[in-house]
Amino acid sequence: MAKPLPVSPLARPLPDLATIAGVRLSAVAAGIRYQGRTDLMLAEFVPGTIAAGVYTKNACPGAPVLWCRTALTTPYARALLVNAGNANVFTGRAGMQACSDCADATAQLLDCPPQDVFLASTGVIGEKLPQDRIIGALPAAKAGLNENGWADAARAIMTTDTFPKAARRDVKIAGTPVRIQGIAKGSGMVAPDMATMLAYVATDAKLPQNILQSLLASGCSQSFNAITVDSDTSTSDMLMLFATGLADNPEIDDINDPALAEFTLALNDLLLELALMVVRDGEGATKLVRIGVTGAESNLSAHRIALCIANSPLVKTAIAGEDANWGRVVMAVGKSGEPADRDRLSVAIGGTWIAKEGGVVENYDEAPVVAHMKGQEIEIVVDLGLGDGEARVWTCDLTHGYIDINGSYRS
Amino acid sequence: MAKPLPVSPLARPLPDLATIAGVRLSAVAAGIRYQGRTDLMLAEFVPGTIAAGVYTKNACPGAPVLWCRTALTTPYARALLVNAGNANVFTGRAGMQACSDCADATAQLLDCPPQDVFLASTGVIGEKLPQDRIIGALPAAKAGLNENGWADAARAIMTTDTFPKAARRDVKIAGTPVRIQGIAKGSGMVAPDMATMLAYVATDAKLPQNILQSLLASGCSQSFNAITVDSDTSTSDMLMLFATGLADNPEIDDINDPALAEFTLALNDLLLELALMVVRDGEGATKLVRIGVTGAESNLSAHRIALCIANSPLVKTAIAGEDANWGRVVMAVGKSGEPADRDRLSVAIGGTWIAKEGGVVENYDEAPVVAHMKGQEIEIVVDLGLGDGEARVWTCDLTHGYIDINGSYRS
Repeated sequence: MAKPLPVSPLARPLPDLATIAGVRLSAVAAGIRYQGRTDLMLAEFVPGTIAAGVYTKNACPGAPVLWCRTALTTPYARALLVNAGNANVFTGRAGMQACSDCADATAQLLDCPPQDVFLASTGVIGEKLPQDRIIGALPAAKAGLNENGWADAARAIMTTDTFPKAARRDVKIAGTPVRIQGIAKGSGMVAPDMATMLAYVATDAKLPQNILQSLLASGCSQSFNAITVDSDTSTSDMLMLFATGLADNPEIDDINDPALAEFTLALNDLLLELALMVVRDGEGATKLVRIGVTGAESNLSAHRIALCIANSPLVKTAIAGEDANWGRVVMAVGKSGEPADRDRLSVAIGGTWIAKEGGVVENYDEAPVVAHMKGQEIEIVVDLGLGDGEARVWTCDLTHGYIDINGSYRS
Repeated sequence: MAKPLPVSPLARPLPDLATIAGVRLSAVAAGIRYQGRTDLMLAEFVPGTIAAGVYTKNACPGAPVLWCRTALTTPYARALLVNAGNANVFTGRAGMQACSDCADATAQLLDCPPQDVFLASTGVIGEKLPQDRIIGALPAAKAGLNENGWADAARAIMTTDTFPKAARRDVKIAGTPVRIQGIAKGSGMVAPDMATMLAYVATDAKLPQNILQSLLASGCSQSFNAITVDSDTSTSDMLMLFATGLADNPEIDDINDPALAEFTLALNDLLLELALMVVRDGEGATKLVRIGVTGAESNLSAHRIALCIANSPLVKTAIAGEDANWGRVVMAVGKSGEPADRDRLSVAIGGTWIAKEGGVVENYDEAPVVAHMKGQEIEIVVDLGLGDGEARVWTCDLTHGYIDINGSYRS
């Protein structure tokens, strides 16, 4: 970027971060694209760490996504190497070779098999990854590894993000204290089917790979797959969960084990917190928008309708203009292709029902709606009046900032 | 709108319009929403005029769309009444009553059955149609009817349009001269499944209703259903074709009759010209973008991929920024959900192949691409390398102008 972006008005400060036993991190400046900032993060995991991952469904994924999918065919992770500034996407055979070279170099330094090294790159698409700079920076990255490197890591993976994103939960599994901590980055090209660009969560809990993977997939559906900034699905999206097992909690072999309930809730909550930070840092965002859909024919139908509203440029620009233009919400419901009956539809904004069963509510009090639209957190609820299906998704408004950022990204 | 929008830099002047035998039009100022301009158009068709229509697929259509669908169950049209400023959408039973009242009043004035009156309204959603003002303006509208009213009619139906849109073709059917002439309006909430908000075409050709309807549906698929401004599908879209039959050409009872070929080509060409005018007046548009997809598994797959590219906010903002960011094109192909193979994909911009078979073309000449991006008409071609499917769609760029217009539409 030519000049740094102003910090999002919806930004959240970094929480009080702790350590995760068995995880050390570092961040260095490898000069990949940006000047005067860190752009490469390395995480080292204790031997025996189990990995789970969810990756973009974009049919043209980046080379690092292909690498990680293959690496995940064995459950172990020893390292995670992430660079910002270059996505290593649509780089042909050279892109896969760059992954292989980076993984080999990391594996050699950390004394592990290359397939235990996970990789990610985000930034510009279609330009060759400057792998020599990355590999050249690895010794410094290794030297800097420390248990308190989380905040630095969160900063090193940022691209157009305007604030670093991290979250933490402390819970118990069958009486044993365990911790979950994660970092994420956004912040454009964000849409369902792995909605954030990158999110990494680690825990010291001891859990088998199949449970870890199920927990992650399930938590993702209600968090990262329920947010959208601009309907564009990145070629590099990934969400990973690493479990070092050093907490030494009792063994869990059933995902429905009551002893796991607190952990599951905390993980879901942390994933949603990180996902909402991505929306809060949506390019040009000035408002965080929650869209609830009830009364749909099914939960899936509700989810699709909610996303259709969340992705409508006309709805998003109206919100930017603080205009409670519920007519555009109706339009978006109608274009979703999902079952809807105009004459049963109701719309509320900020808790005030503006339209009920197909018509405007006569003499509804516009004052609280106008006040709500001026706030930073907007809530829109649509009731279809058809069934029990419901869903919630989050998005941000569409402003001049989005155009500014994306009209000149490469310049 | 608080103040008039500047005319689109992509605007086209009105062509040399003629008369269509059997069609008279007028435009009046009914004070529906705007001040100091016409906002109501009336067209009168000679008895025996046949109508064909294609309407929005939005599941929450406006009352006038429901009215027209019913009216089209008989083939005849005697009048068309269109207002700007209020869409009569999501207005419940009162909306249908307003349609009925307007049709009755028009029918009485023109001495025809109400079901021969076609109606359309565009503008703000969810506000009661001021039908008394419309009905009150009808006598003046009737008094003003004249064969040369086409340009005035094109102006009266504008909402956020910045220029009036019309097109004309003169052709022959089996040696008999016939004429086709139409008007259209845009210019936001424009997406496939009836892409423009309103377009009306008339001809003096004598053609049966089934052929007229088939010609219109077929022509629409390659024109109005191949354009998109913002992916939002209006609740009011409609395209209608009226044939007065006064040209007295020989009877045609087969759509594949060679005598109809010239007319069919001319109609398709006119529909595309009108559709492109809608894109040229896309809210905030500064560039007209043609997206060609070849080598897809089927024509339908190619069409979906082309629309996915055309609707990507990241592709559209890059074009606004004159940035040949072909990586975003690849992203959009990948997110379409259609069959694609990263390593067979090729992308050309302005005729220059930038990427071939999954990788950037080494040392391609960037100069013509940079020059092309600075122009007003941008061409992007994607070859999938999979099959014979192909499609072409048109869109415009996404600029600050779109945000300006849509963040304050109701204020």
